[in-house]
Amino acid sequence: MNTSKKIYSGKTKDLFALPNGNIFLVFKDDVTGADGVIDPGANSVIGKVEGKGNKSLAMTDYFFKCLHAAGIPTHLVHVDLEKGAMEVRRAEPLGKDVSGSGGFEFVCRTRPWGSFIRRYQKYIQDTGQDLAYLVEVTVKDDERGDPLINDDTIIALGLLKPSHLEQAKTITRHVCRIVEADLRNKGLTLIDMKIEIGLVDGEIVVIDEISADAMRVMDDTGTVLDHGTVYARLIR
Amino acid sequence: MNTSKKIYSGKTKDLFALPNGNIFLVFKDDVTGADGVIDPGANSVIGKVEGKGNKSLAMTDYFFKCLHAAGIPTHLVHVDLEKGAMEVRRAEPLGKDVSGSGGFEFVCRTRPWGSFIRRYQKYIQDTGQDLAYLVEVTVKDDERGDPLINDDTIIALGLLKPSHLEQAKTITRHVCRIVEADLRNKGLTLIDMKIEIGLVDGEIVVIDEISADAMRVMDDTGTVLDHGTVYARLIR
Repeated sequence: MNTSKKIYSGKTKDLFALPNGNIFLVFKDDVTGADGVIDPGANSVIGKVEGKGNKSLAMTDYFFKCLHAAGIPTHLVHVDLEKGAMEVRRAEPLGKDVSGSGGFEFVCRTRPWGSFIRRYQKYIQDTGQDLAYLVEVTVKDDERGDPLINDDTIIALGLLKPSHLEQAKTITRHVCRIVEADLRNKGLTLIDMKIEIGLVDGEIVVIDEISADAMRVMDDTGTVLDHGTVYARLIR
Repeated sequence: MNTSKKIYSGKTKDLFALPNGNIFLVFKDDVTGADGVIDPGANSVIGKVEGKGNKSLAMTDYFFKCLHAAGIPTHLVHVDLEKGAMEVRRAEPLGKDVSGSGGFEFVCRTRPWGSFIRRYQKYIQDTGQDLAYLVEVTVKDDERGDPLINDDTIIALGLLKPSHLEQAKTITRHVCRIVEADLRNKGLTLIDMKIEIGLVDGEIVVIDEISADAMRVMDDTGTVLDHGTVYARLIR
């Protein structure tokens, strides 16, 4: 770590450039939220939860390895749980703007919940309705409330090639099915989740993390679980 | 008109059922806006502009006939300028919800402007950028700010068949090109516009209106024109 250089300090991770050209992602215990309530979708850090960074890292490690087993590439090189960090290949996040900030989030939904219901209430019969792994792409832009962006706009603004967009959506659905099946084996139901995707040497790969912070989960009584409970159920 | 029955009173039109099964659309002089400023995109009626209904009707008549000449069907049967009304075939608006309210608006953009810039500011270089007639679909839902809805969601919620969605988007782009070309001949530039689309006997057709209220237009100095000026330039 002496020869690595901090290149970015995010809300939940710090990034260091390694001498071999890779990136060292250090997971922090910081949690985001609003009005004192933890909400991984919120844009402000409201405090720390001891051990949270390591749980996110362990869960990401677990799911990234499930993806590799299913033939879905990620940017992961190796995880160092002692250091609470993972080494990853340097990726170009899809949807990065000209200044290099931002990027897309790929949301996959198995059933209507949260902002989806708020937006499309007119059309929703019940929260058990099958959404067939639909994908929504949103722009990471705190100031503008992470706006939804449609496929036509992504193409017209030249933000992605059509083939890359299709691949990214296909991978998002595939990841969602893998995570859903894994949770089902543990008595849990995946409602929705989001991932980030990037290009490494021209190849579409899953990047960042797959943790409880990036998914909404309910138990067999239909109760939506807080993220601490999801970690407790999934990570020893 | 004695044998017709009022079935709906909208913000800018009243609808009557005709004995032959068609609908009689009466255009009103009511204008929508906020804080005393006329804005056809707003959701409250703020007053009346003498003759406005007739201008919207005349412009719709003109453009619907341009569409017919280009082989694009509309629900128009005939226009009665004396009565400020048009007879149309009864259509099922695309995106209508279970209660029969709402519906989709199909927005077509030639360049970034307004809400599009507010949402995607990160990605926009300048307002002259070519958007290649991209289409956005929004839900008519005053309470929820007419939210954007993407293709995957339209399909997953069963709101349109994929073939109908594709046809509707293709028609929207075609209409936009026709209107843009017509305005260009009059020294005006179309920035964006919106239309509504419906099903008549299983066929996808343009419905409602094509008026200055549903488009953003600038003159050759780059000034965006108010709707009264657009009517003055286009309707005698």
